[in-house]
Amino acid sequence: MEHLIGNAAVGQSGGPTAAINASLAGVLRGVRAHAETIPKIYGMKNGIEGLLSDRLADLTSLSRDEERLSLLETTPASALGSCRTRLPDPDKDDGTLARTVEICRRYGIRYFFYIGGNDSMDTVAKLSAYAEAVGYEMRVFGVPKTIDNDLALTDHTPGYGSAAKYGANTMAELVRDCAVYTVPAVTVVEIMGRDAGWLTASAGLGRFIGAGAPDAVYLPERPFSLAAFDRDLKAAFDRHPNVVIAVSEGIRYEDGRYVCEGLHSDTKDRFGHVILTGAAAALKEHIREVFSCKARAVELSTVQRCAAHLASLTDLCEASEIAAFAVARAVEGESGRTAIFRRLSDDPYRIAMESAPAAEIANKVRRVPDEYITPEGNYVTKAFAAYLLPLIRGETSPVYENGVVKHFEL
Amino acid sequence: MEHLIGNAAVGQSGGPTAAINASLAGVLRGVRAHAETIPKIYGMKNGIEGLLSDRLADLTSLSRDEERLSLLETTPASALGSCRTRLPDPDKDDGTLARTVEICRRYGIRYFFYIGGNDSMDTVAKLSAYAEAVGYEMRVFGVPKTIDNDLALTDHTPGYGSAAKYGANTMAELVRDCAVYTVPAVTVVEIMGRDAGWLTASAGLGRFIGAGAPDAVYLPERPFSLAAFDRDLKAAFDRHPNVVIAVSEGIRYEDGRYVCEGLHSDTKDRFGHVILTGAAAALKEHIREVFSCKARAVELSTVQRCAAHLASLTDLCEASEIAAFAVARAVEGESGRTAIFRRLSDDPYRIAMESAPAAEIANKVRRVPDEYITPEGNYVTKAFAAYLLPLIRGETSPVYENGVVKHFEL
Repeated sequence: MEHLIGNAAVGQSGGPTAAINASLAGVLRGVRAHAETIPKIYGMKNGIEGLLSDRLADLTSLSRDEERLSLLETTPASALGSCRTRLPDPDKDDGTLARTVEICRRYGIRYFFYIGGNDSMDTVAKLSAYAEAVGYEMRVFGVPKTIDNDLALTDHTPGYGSAAKYGANTMAELVRDCAVYTVPAVTVVEIMGRDAGWLTASAGLGRFIGAGAPDAVYLPERPFSLAAFDRDLKAAFDRHPNVVIAVSEGIRYEDGRYVCEGLHSDTKDRFGHVILTGAAAALKEHIREVFSCKARAVELSTVQRCAAHLASLTDLCEASEIAAFAVARAVEGESGRTAIFRRLSDDPYRIAMESAPAAEIANKVRRVPDEYITPEGNYVTKAFAAYLLPLIRGETSPVYENGVVKHFEL
Repeated sequence: MEHLIGNAAVGQSGGPTAAINASLAGVLRGVRAHAETIPKIYGMKNGIEGLLSDRLADLTSLSRDEERLSLLETTPASALGSCRTRLPDPDKDDGTLARTVEICRRYGIRYFFYIGGNDSMDTVAKLSAYAEAVGYEMRVFGVPKTIDNDLALTDHTPGYGSAAKYGANTMAELVRDCAVYTVPAVTVVEIMGRDAGWLTASAGLGRFIGAGAPDAVYLPERPFSLAAFDRDLKAAFDRHPNVVIAVSEGIRYEDGRYVCEGLHSDTKDRFGHVILTGAAAALKEHIREVFSCKARAVELSTVQRCAAHLASLTDLCEASEIAAFAVARAVEGESGRTAIFRRLSDDPYRIAMESAPAAEIANKVRRVPDEYITPEGNYVTKAFAAYLLPLIRGETSPVYENGVVKHFEL
């Protein structure tokens, strides 16, 4: 291992989560632990977009202030801001890659940590390869985060546990809310996840632990059939008048059309644009028609990814730990890699941290495997509950002032 | 005061809240405190609807089990179930009133507690008057609850503080979530309250206590103007690219049309039904058109009324206390009345419990007064913040099992 002394930069990218600031706190703690190697750490405002426009904040003193790091950790959404900007392919580059390295050189940045999902890992892979190609020694490392839990190679991603905890808890509350009347009614709850159903799957956890849970759960991993849906609803109505259904925003019919565009594809606004209703809103109309009963659509919307007041303690701790682990691995000499979790056992829950090539994670989607979905495709399995349970365990202690949770300000 | 010995019945009516079970716990505690007067208490399943169909649960042993009452208190939605059934006017009665009294007589019920909003207070007034008219001595008492906070005569209603705490906290989280990108975008958050804007008003609290808050807040108490809305948005864009707006589901134009039906009144589904989008969804389309920017609609939906994990401690305590107060007043001889709060001071927060005729509360709506809304009609005032703050103070300690909040089961 060669010892490389230099500053660090850290950025947050992609959609915000309740744990992405815990990842940032973890990078800062990791840097603090290697202060002799990394004298300074800069935060890129709005990720690579901010680096390219010279918007860097010196976070060195923050990295040494554990009290502020604690507050940062329980604050939702990216404290540094985020972006959706991606680095170009080397053969299509307009100078962006060179400019990125030039700015890093100017700030003496030799360690580059990027917190994000599969798009962000693409940035890690490209920047690491480019820096090496042009002979600028810099260790570029990916720190995983996404509520979607769809990163390849890792057991799970920071951010998912908190969003899933929100999903399981909110379903338990909604199921009670829906159960109060005797009139037949269906509530369709729409949960984020266009390509992978991990988060929607969390809605079904309650069934396995004696908590409130929906009657059926539909993931994008299986084609959605209205006929099967109607049968599931009929079976649910045989049990009770208040039916609750969880669906992923990304469910599609056998022919590939999204449910959210399927029922009203001929519905246009007064300017001729097709109105994209959500999957739940579309199914609500279908239910009213077929069952002539009350139907309601509930979208958990972006609230589900920023509900830090209900974060999973396991998730926040792991987010910080794997970020600090990424720093340690970079200091040891690795580059172009992403920190990942490997599960050793469910119960007792044991996990190992490792790293994998960022290029093998970039732009890939890890979907919910077959053994986590019932053969009928309308619920999750006990094996999934065993997988999920340890990730949502533990409650955090957010600081409230005047009844409102206190957040970190940069 | 005449001493009336007899059993009690308690029912929950109208929309569920996070505090309505604390009210139930309070009634049970009140009955326990008067065990020599009230030997037994029955819970009506689904309110008056259950009483009329003989679905009564003996809650006497529950009333003596403080541990279970505590769990009941932090469980959202009506544990006894609810209904929207109203008692008929005496001159249009088909025998329902007589049947109600007959069932009460059969169970030896001399105390009747009804937890609910303005519809439920109508039931209290009618039943009390009818029982008196037919010479059946029964004390009928209203226990206030509604997230809408729109009951006449009372300073506030149990259930509101918790829903408002959810509103203020969720806005703080959403504002952070929305702030991460640099691209201009508007998020419109729709909050419950068709006729009164109390709950939507809670979204603006953050501005007065240094927490995240939206750029503008529109209540149904003021006519909504698209021109003024566009001006407010332009002013907000001058400050930052990420604009967040809170609107009540019930906002209407000057001509009385709801915003939720105004923009797309010519939009029909494939069966020819007009699609009723929410107010936020309608404004989202308007914003995309006028500002050509990203716009998103977020509905807090029914989650905002059942988020017991984020309940206000003040709200839950008061809900229980005013319910026990109602029992005490009934035992003292009052009937046909509703327990109410009178505020003595904001800071320190001091409150008195009193009672008022249920008939004066029934079917009335108390709206947000002028001094709580800015002259421009696009925000709440400091006076409103002073009013709201004490109601959302204090956090509860829900019991979590396996990362999911534990709920009471009857």
